Amino acid sequence: MSFLEKYSDTVQRNNSFVCVGLDPDPAKLPEHLKGKSNPTRAFLTEIIAATRDIACAYKPNFAFFGAQGIAGWEALQGAVRAIPNDMPIILDFKAGDIGNTAEQYAYMAYRELGVDAVTVNPLMGTDAIDPFLAYQNGCAFLLCLTSNPGSADILRLNTDRGVLYEVLAQRAVEWSETGPCGLVVGATHPDDLKTIREIATDLPILLPGVGPQGGQTNAIVQNGLDHKGSGILVNSSRSVLYASSSTDFADAARQSAEDLRQMLNSARGGKR
Amino acid sequence: MSFLEKYSDTVQRNNSFVCVGLDPDPAKLPEHLKGKSNPTRAFLTEIIAATRDIACAYKPNFAFFGAQGIAGWEALQGAVRAIPNDMPIILDFKAGDIGNTAEQYAYMAYRELGVDAVTVNPLMGTDAIDPFLAYQNGCAFLLCLTSNPGSADILRLNTDRGVLYEVLAQRAVEWSETGPCGLVVGATHPDDLKTIREIATDLPILLPGVGPQGGQTNAIVQNGLDHKGSGILVNSSRSVLYASSSTDFADAARQSAEDLRQMLNSARGGKR
Repeated sequence: MSFLEKYSDTVQRNNSFVCVGLDPDPAKLPEHLKGKSNPTRAFLTEIIAATRDIACAYKPNFAFFGAQGIAGWEALQGAVRAIPNDMPIILDFKAGDIGNTAEQYAYMAYRELGVDAVTVNPLMGTDAIDPFLAYQNGCAFLLCLTSNPGSADILRLNTDRGVLYEVLAQRAVEWSETGPCGLVVGATHPDDLKTIREIATDLPILLPGVGPQGGQTNAIVQNGLDHKGSGILVNSSRSVLYASSSTDFADAARQSAEDLRQMLNSARGGKR
Repeated sequence: MSFLEKYSDTVQRNNSFVCVGLDPDPAKLPEHLKGKSNPTRAFLTEIIAATRDIACAYKPNFAFFGAQGIAGWEALQGAVRAIPNDMPIILDFKAGDIGNTAEQYAYMAYRELGVDAVTVNPLMGTDAIDPFLAYQNGCAFLLCLTSNPGSADILRLNTDRGVLYEVLAQRAVEWSETGPCGLVVGATHPDDLKTIREIATDLPILLPGVGPQGGQTNAIVQNGLDHKGSGILVNSSRSVLYASSSTDFADAARQSAEDLRQMLNSARGGKR
């Protein structure tokens, strides 16, 4: 199954746009797991079991695994195995290199780890994207506009072809003719999301940056949905993973994911 | 010792601007190493031993290790251990994320792996850079202008503050007031390198993309050196690593690195 097929299936089956971000921070793991041989793997296995009928996708964030070295790599492999085969996994890596190096990153994601999609940084242009597009069952989620204050430094520069993030959205549409692409758009900019959706009418959009309160979910959903009433993945990491730091962490994670699912579904309103 | 101290020392001691790139491709390893428990680690240990008095730095390319999973991670750790403590190691990762994720990448590089510098993608702005600048003994080499054809797609866009790569060079100068920064500039653009050196007068510049023939080394050196006649790291990966695919691979690698060292030193000419 391709990424897009898996995504479409889980959106239907779980009635959900919730993407659960896996950012395991050893300092935040529940105390009772710290004696396990691989606490991060044990933690994520329970998180996944508690949310697999609520999420539409999972997004492991490579940084939090890489920072733990080999134990982190093993935890990442464990998470990939624990996620049901028919649910899409997006490796959040922000891969940004070219040519044979980009080929190695695509191999790492799609073959070595066995995920379904990867986040990719488009700064270096076509040569940074093409090796990912060669995986026709995958999906390259290209950074477009991020939610941090510093996103204005570069991504909002005015170019002679439009604001940079608009240029990136336009290029993504062109690149998507070669292979599956999506966009990463910070959830804190719903107005800009509208502009981006008007450019990239058919691309899936991954939306990180939804806070614990789920603020702006109405605007995100209204502005982000495509003409079929789908095409968004609203990511929540910390508010799901660390909803409780006690033995009830999995139940609390489930509740947090459920709350976000309901908020997003309410916001769909007449769009469904 | 900081990255800049190590770099300055090895440039002097080895009379060299050669950075040896470690891009281990399993398909290209010498046949006689393939029976080793970790062929990549065995290969790199010999490459490093053969070039440690010729190089000014090493640059492991994460993609080639990541693509090999845990065996790759072990080979990367082995390479870091095999490189003398007083020689600088640049992890080529193109890290491009923000906030606590960028902190994890910086931790991975500087603490978990123990390298001296990291390549960083500046697309997401200040928040993507700051966590690396916090390591005052490190150095964040920011992508500025790459050597690939697609670099024109984004990096050469005209913005209302100049061509994008010039804006990035200017921002790097500002960021370097917070912590050590360098730039990554493709060796195939010596004219643009001149412009960049005029903007970033004091920053070290990492120059990938020197081909096997070492073409344009004169222009690279003349345009890249800083006012002290230093400040460049000219990277060569494949032409050193795969100079021979036989049992003499280490000698051949040494000769290739030596040829590049001599070409670069000849090009210094009156600048020394």
